[in-house]
Amino acid sequence: MFGKYLLKVKEKKPLIHCITNYVTVNDVANMILACGANPLMADAPEEASEITSISDGLNINIGTLNSMTVRSMLISGKKANELGIPAVLDPVGAGSGRYRTETALELMKNIHFSVIKGNLSEIMTLSSLFAGSGSGRGIPDFRPKGADSGIEEQINDNNVMKYAAYARELAAAADCIIVITGASDLVCDSGNCYIIKNGRPEMGKITGTGCQLSGLLTAFAASSPEDLLNACAAAVCAMGASGEIAREHMLEHEGNSTYRSRMIDAVYNMDPQTLDDREKSILCQ
Amino acid sequence: MFGKYLLKVKEKKPLIHCITNYVTVNDVANMILACGANPLMADAPEEASEITSISDGLNINIGTLNSMTVRSMLISGKKANELGIPAVLDPVGAGSGRYRTETALELMKNIHFSVIKGNLSEIMTLSSLFAGSGSGRGIPDFRPKGADSGIEEQINDNNVMKYAAYARELAAAADCIIVITGASDLVCDSGNCYIIKNGRPEMGKITGTGCQLSGLLTAFAASSPEDLLNACAAAVCAMGASGEIAREHMLEHEGNSTYRSRMIDAVYNMDPQTLDDREKSILCQ
Amino acid sequence: MFGKYLLKVKEKKPLIHCITNYVTVNDVANMILACGANPLMADAPEEASEITSISDGLNINIGTLNSMTVRSMLISGKKANELGIPAVLDPVGAGSGRYRTETALELMKNIHFSVIKGNLSEIMTLSSLFAGSGSGRGIPDFRPKGADSGIEEQINDNNVMKYAAYARELAAAADCIIVITGASDLVCDSGNCYIIKNGRPEMGKITGTGCQLSGLLTAFAASSPEDLLNACAAAVCAMGASGEIAREHMLEHEGNSTYRSRMIDAVYNMDPQTLDDREKSILCQ
Repeated sequence: MFGKYLLKVKEKKPLIHCITNYVTVNDVANMILACGANPLMADAPEEASEITSISDGLNINIGTLNSMTVRSMLISGKKANELGIPAVLDPVGAGSGRYRTETALELMKNIHFSVIKGNLSEIMTLSSLFAGSGSGRGIPDFRPKGADSGIEEQINDNNVMKYAAYARELAAAADCIIVITGASDLVCDSGNCYIIKNGRPEMGKITGTGCQLSGLLTAFAASSPEDLLNACAAAVCAMGASGEIAREHMLEHEGNSTYRSRMIDAVYNMDPQTLDDREKSILCQ
Repeated sequence: MFGKYLLKVKEKKPLIHCITNYVTVNDVANMILACGANPLMADAPEEASEITSISDGLNINIGTLNSMTVRSMLISGKKANELGIPAVLDPVGAGSGRYRTETALELMKNIHFSVIKGNLSEIMTLSSLFAGSGSGRGIPDFRPKGADSGIEEQINDNNVMKYAAYARELAAAADCIIVITGASDLVCDSGNCYIIKNGRPEMGKITGTGCQLSGLLTAFAASSPEDLLNACAAAVCAMGASGEIAREHMLEHEGNSTYRSRMIDAVYNMDPQTLDDREKSILCQ
Repeated sequence: MFGKYLLKVKEKKPLIHCITNYVTVNDVANMILACGANPLMADAPEEASEITSISDGLNINIGTLNSMTVRSMLISGKKANELGIPAVLDPVGAGSGRYRTETALELMKNIHFSVIKGNLSEIMTLSSLFAGSGSGRGIPDFRPKGADSGIEEQINDNNVMKYAAYARELAAAADCIIVITGASDLVCDSGNCYIIKNGRPEMGKITGTGCQLSGLLTAFAASSPEDLLNACAAAVCAMGASGEIAREHMLEHEGNSTYRSRMIDAVYNMDPQTLDDREKSILCQ
C-alpha cells in the first residue's frame, strides 16, 4: 500500500533543502539520493531564503545548532510556509538542555511544520511544553543518553496507546504529523495513528538513522503533500525495511559502520513492490 | 599517457589545503589520501594564511559557504597566488542563487585560479557573467536540481563543441583550466580541449563525486604545475575510471553508499598503468 | 589484561560530549557507539556547559577549530573540571601553525586534561612549549605533512626511550596521561610508559584514525577514571587491534575507504577476550 508513495518520490525527484547537523549530513544526503530525491545542504542566512525558494521541501534538524544556523532555520522555515512547501522538524536533543529545547519551541512558534519527528523523550518534551502548556505540566524529567537515544522506556504493546495520545495531542496543537521513533514507531495526526513495526534494534548503534529518516520524511512529504499521513508512514516503513534488508546482507565480521552503508544501499535498491511486501503497519483510529 | 601524472602525485605527496563544505569533506580527505597526497582541512580566518603557506595546493569549494569561510577563502587564495601554488575553485551551486553566484565571482575577481571545475550550469553561469560581461549576456536561466546536478542538458556528441567554446572563452578570460563534468567531461584551456568519456551514470547518485574530483584536481595540479592541462585531464580520467572499476566490483544488493566507498578504494589501488589502460580521452585543438 | 577496560565501557555506556572537527565527526560518533558508549556532538557556546553537565566525559579535538568552537571548548573544559569528569585533548595540527599551537596551549593552561593524545610533532611541540618552557627550548622545527601525519621520524626501537622521556616530562607538567601515536604508540604518565605495537601502517591512509582514537580514549577514561593509565593503554590497543582485524578481512580490490568502515566494525564486534588476545604492550617503569 505504501509503495506508491515511494514511486511518487522517484517520479517527482523533489529538491530537498536541508539545514542539518555536520555529524550525519553526508548520510542524509546519500539517503535522500537513494530514495530518488535531490538534496541541497545550505545553512548560511545570506542564502537561506533563496535556496528554500528553489526547493520542494525543507528539512530542519537541530543536531548541531548554533546561532547562525538557527537564524537560517527561521528564515527558511518562514519562506517554506510562504511558498506552501512542506517543512519537517527533527528536534534532536530537545529535553537534553535548555538551548535545544527552547530553540525547538521557538521554531515551532514561528514556523508551521508539516511533520515533526523525534524519539520519545524529544516528543514528550515538546508535547509537554507546546501542547500541554495549558494543562499545568512542566518539562518532563528525562535524562537522555546521547542525542540518538531517548528515555529508557521504549514504545511497546503495553504503553503504545498512552504515547499515541500524547502524539495526537501535539499533532492537534501544532497542526502537523507527529512521528515518534523507537522499537515501534508511531505516525499520527490529530485523529489517526499508525503503529509501525518495521526496523531492527541494530539501527540504534549507528549515528544518524533518525536524521536519515527525517530526510526521507521530507522527500516523501514533498512528493505527496496532499496525503501527508500516509506519505510519512511510508517513509517510516521504508527506513525500517532498509534496516531489515541491510541486516540480511551482513557478514559475520561486519558491524555498525558497514550496516550504515547497507541501509542506504537498501533504500537505493528498494522498489515500490518491496516496500509493499515489507511494511508492517497497523492503523488505529 | 596520463599515468605519469598519477605517478607524480605519489612521488611528491603534496599537502592540499582544503576549504570545503561539511557535507562531503570526509570523502574528499579520503580521496586525496587515496591518490597519494595529504589533505589538511582548515577554514578559520585566523589560520587561513599560515595553513596555505605550508601547503602545495589550495582547494576551494563553496558547497556550504558562509561569511566566515568566504573570508578564509579570500585570504588563502591570495596567499596561494603570492606563493605561486595552484588554487582550484569548485563553484558548487553557482547559478542556483545570488549568494553563491556572487561569491564565486568575487573569488574569481580577487584570486587567480589555476583550475575551475563545475557542472554545466555552474560553468555556464560563470562564463556568462565573468567571460561574457562585455557581450551583453545576462545570467542564464538554469534551475538546478540540487547542488550536484545541473541543467537538464548533458554534454553529448552533438553539443560538445558548443560547450567547449564557452569553456575556452572562460578559460581565456580567467587564464585557467576549465573542467566541465557531465556524461562526457571537458578539460579546456583557452586553446585546447580534452573530451573525456570515462565515468558511469551511477556517479550522479552519490553526493560529493564532484567535490572529490576537485580534491584530485588540486593534488594533480600541485604535483605537475608546469603541465596543468594534462594533469587536470589525468585527474578527470582517474575519477571516471574509479567509477568504472567500482561498478565492476558491486554486488547485486549494494547501492550508492557502498559505491561511494568503492570509488575511493579504486583510486587507492590505481597504478599508473591502470590509468593509462583505462583513459578514454580525445584532444581537440 | 586490557579486556576488562573494554568491558567497563560496555557496562557503563558513558555519554561522551565531543567538540570535534567536521571532517571525521561521523566516524568518531560511530566509533564511540561501536565500543559501547554514546556520543553527543555539540559545539555552540550557548549549550556547551549544559551538554557537558549531562555527560560522563569530554572529548576536545581542534582539527577544524574556529573562534566559536574554541569558546565552547573553554566553557566545556572548565565545566568538566568542575564536575570531575575526564577531559581529553586531541591537539590536531599543533606545531603546523601559530593559531593551532596557541589554542592548544591556551586550552592546556585553562583546563586540566586527563589525557592528551597527539602524533610525535604535536606532542613534541606541546612538550617543548608547555613542559619545557623553563628549559630554554623553543618551538621545534617540524613541518607537518597534513593534519594526520607528523614529523618524518617515527617512534622505533632505537628512539623510543628518548621520546618516552619527553612524554613523561609533559605528563608530569600537565598532570595527565600522554599518548603519542606512530608506528609504535606510547602511553605515559609521569612515571610509567606503555610501548604498544598494535596497529597497521594502512591506518595512516585514512583520515580520522587519530580522531577516532581520541573518542575511544574518552570513552575508556570515562568508564575507568580511577585507573587512567591502563584504560588509555587499553583504548590504544583496541584501536590498533581494530586495524589488524580490519586488514584480515580486506579483499584485494578494497582500499582505504572500506578499511575505515572495517575498523569501526572490528571495534563493534570486539569482545574483552579478543582484546586480551591481541594486545601487544610492554610496560616500562
